[in-house]
Amino acid sequence: MTAARMDHAGRRDRLRAAAGEQGLDAVLVTNLLNVRYLTGFTGSNGALLVRTGGADLFGTDGRYTTQAGTQVPDVELLVDRGTVGALTAAAAGVGRLGFESHDVTVDGLRALERVLEGSATELVGVRRAVEGLRAVKDDDEVDALRRACTVADQALAELAAEGALRPGRTELAVGRELDARMLSLGAESPSFETIVATGANSAIPHHRPDTTELRDGDFLKLDFGATVDGYHSDMTRTLVLGHAADWQREVYALVQASQAAGRDALAVGAEVTAIDAASRDVIVAAGHGEHFTHGLGHGVGLEIHEAPGISALGAGRLAAGMAVTVEPGVYLPGHGGVRIEDTLVVTTDEPELLTLTSKELLVL
Amino acid sequence: MTAARMDHAGRRDRLRAAAGEQGLDAVLVTNLLNVRYLTGFTGSNGALLVRTGGADLFGTDGRYTTQAGTQVPDVELLVDRGTVGALTAAAAGVGRLGFESHDVTVDGLRALERVLEGSATELVGVRRAVEGLRAVKDDDEVDALRRACTVADQALAELAAEGALRPGRTELAVGRELDARMLSLGAESPSFETIVATGANSAIPHHRPDTTELRDGDFLKLDFGATVDGYHSDMTRTLVLGHAADWQREVYALVQASQAAGRDALAVGAEVTAIDAASRDVIVAAGHGEHFTHGLGHGVGLEIHEAPGISALGAGRLAAGMAVTVEPGVYLPGHGGVRIEDTLVVTTDEPELLTLTSKELLVL
Repeated sequence: MTAARMDHAGRRDRLRAAAGEQGLDAVLVTNLLNVRYLTGFTGSNGALLVRTGGADLFGTDGRYTTQAGTQVPDVELLVDRGTVGALTAAAAGVGRLGFESHDVTVDGLRALERVLEGSATELVGVRRAVEGLRAVKDDDEVDALRRACTVADQALAELAAEGALRPGRTELAVGRELDARMLSLGAESPSFETIVATGANSAIPHHRPDTTELRDGDFLKLDFGATVDGYHSDMTRTLVLGHAADWQREVYALVQASQAAGRDALAVGAEVTAIDAASRDVIVAAGHGEHFTHGLGHGVGLEIHEAPGISALGAGRLAAGMAVTVEPGVYLPGHGGVRIEDTLVVTTDEPELLTLTSKELLVL
Repeated sequence: MTAARMDHAGRRDRLRAAAGEQGLDAVLVTNLLNVRYLTGFTGSNGALLVRTGGADLFGTDGRYTTQAGTQVPDVELLVDRGTVGALTAAAAGVGRLGFESHDVTVDGLRALERVLEGSATELVGVRRAVEGLRAVKDDDEVDALRRACTVADQALAELAAEGALRPGRTELAVGRELDARMLSLGAESPSFETIVATGANSAIPHHRPDTTELRDGDFLKLDFGATVDGYHSDMTRTLVLGHAADWQREVYALVQASQAAGRDALAVGAEVTAIDAASRDVIVAAGHGEHFTHGLGHGVGLEIHEAPGISALGAGRLAAGMAVTVEPGVYLPGHGGVRIEDTLVVTTDEPELLTLTSKELLVL
């Protein structure tokens, strides 16, 4: 199943319905990921005009005429170097035109206003309307996420089996090998800058891999993912090299229990704050609340971080089809830290686990 | 030489001087690449307040406290989850506060205005002030670009030597191998989505690699680059597999001559339109003007496309230290196309060529 076969028309209809409910005559979609979501277009310049009472219009420039014909065969095409301006001009007859106020810059809005000068069209910010739709994944999207998670699972399994995670190697070398392996397994790219953190570095939640060498008795924290058909996987595993000390086993078991509690709380209708609390309470009860310094998780899809956020500061409830991470951590500055993270899909039944690598403490 | 040792303080002073000339009291820098350029910070959330008459202030959130201390030791640090809002609040005393109107969204500006409500501070769009400074590279930046180009040169040389560019392989497989090789040679990532286009696909300027197989007698166009210390290289080479037909040799020689003319025109003070014309005239004179469908080149640095644009629609003149591409192409729809592209640095003498792979027609 490739991205080109996804149900883009259905997605545009959902946006059309939402726009109609807000009294809009059309919506100008400029965020490139939102354009991809609604059309399948993967080029670097494209925009979409969704009309509540008429045919849609997809715009790009001459570099992408052929690609647009292949990827967006079902929307009328407008080819213009000044893509957004030309689409806006095409909308100049409508009454209320929505625009993505979280995406359009201050300079960009001035350009839209110049195009509409003299027309009666009113510009109305719709903020994250498309992102709201994107939070709930359809089957094709879940399939892409599943394949992205499989690539990451397999890359880690192969590196572990080949002895690539051994004392003496640097974090940088391990990270590059993990990235290269994901590419050779079919990833378009890593989902984000791969985190490889060993020893005391594992206590830094977002450590950038450096020339620190892996050593016997140290934690090795790997946070990484693969992008497949534009969809991102996200997984963290923490291993120990050589021999695990008691304190390491204790911290690991604590995070493992917290992560299981977070996963168990993933249910349709659950408040995101309650899910964060279910996982966090386990760590707080063990006296390590101050060592869990970030939110529990986030949505994943065409972006590595998207709606819904799952944290004490979040808002809203889970719905079936949301793809989210659950990733508690305990970080002991100067010593080491553990994070365990899965990507899962919320369903009306048990959540579907997409990252299948074992979460038992692996001593390599 | 690592990015952390670059002269960030000197760059901030240049922005300070430019801001002073525009009557600004401070500039709020929110574009993350501009923040990196001015501070060395590589995290995913950071902003900078540059004051014309006082000390600067760097903001990030708690995830990056340690990293900020290492990467930005010379600027006062403000740690706040709402980074931009907190920096803006810190600026609330000043008279005229510049903001990057090409980067701040409509929603973002409203948030700034809310923070400044009740203060006498006036927000003034400075547009691409930092991008203007970034167009001229300093020695450390040229060094990073040189290393990025070396990685790309070496990756291609190794693949060619190993026989990886042979009939029967797919564009996708070649692209992934090129990407993986650049990573293993020290690239942080490819500079952009690698283009591998063979046969008729080579006539599509920005073809995405697919499952088309390489065949004897076909063109093979490779447009790719490596990112090193955040700096991007950009190179295109077009080869022929097996045996080159006369028409292929003719098109190749034409693009080669056009590219040489473009490189020869790279001089301090040259109008970007004149450089484009110098290269384009060669192709037009041969009757292929309509088959060269894009601009001649662009600046490269922390972004793969940055100032200056070199095209018939561009404006401005070259300055010493600008790093640019020269990349004419001739595309014969349905048959094949040739593009030859180098990355070079403009100097008061000859331009320095950074992409050193031979430009003679290679028949593999």
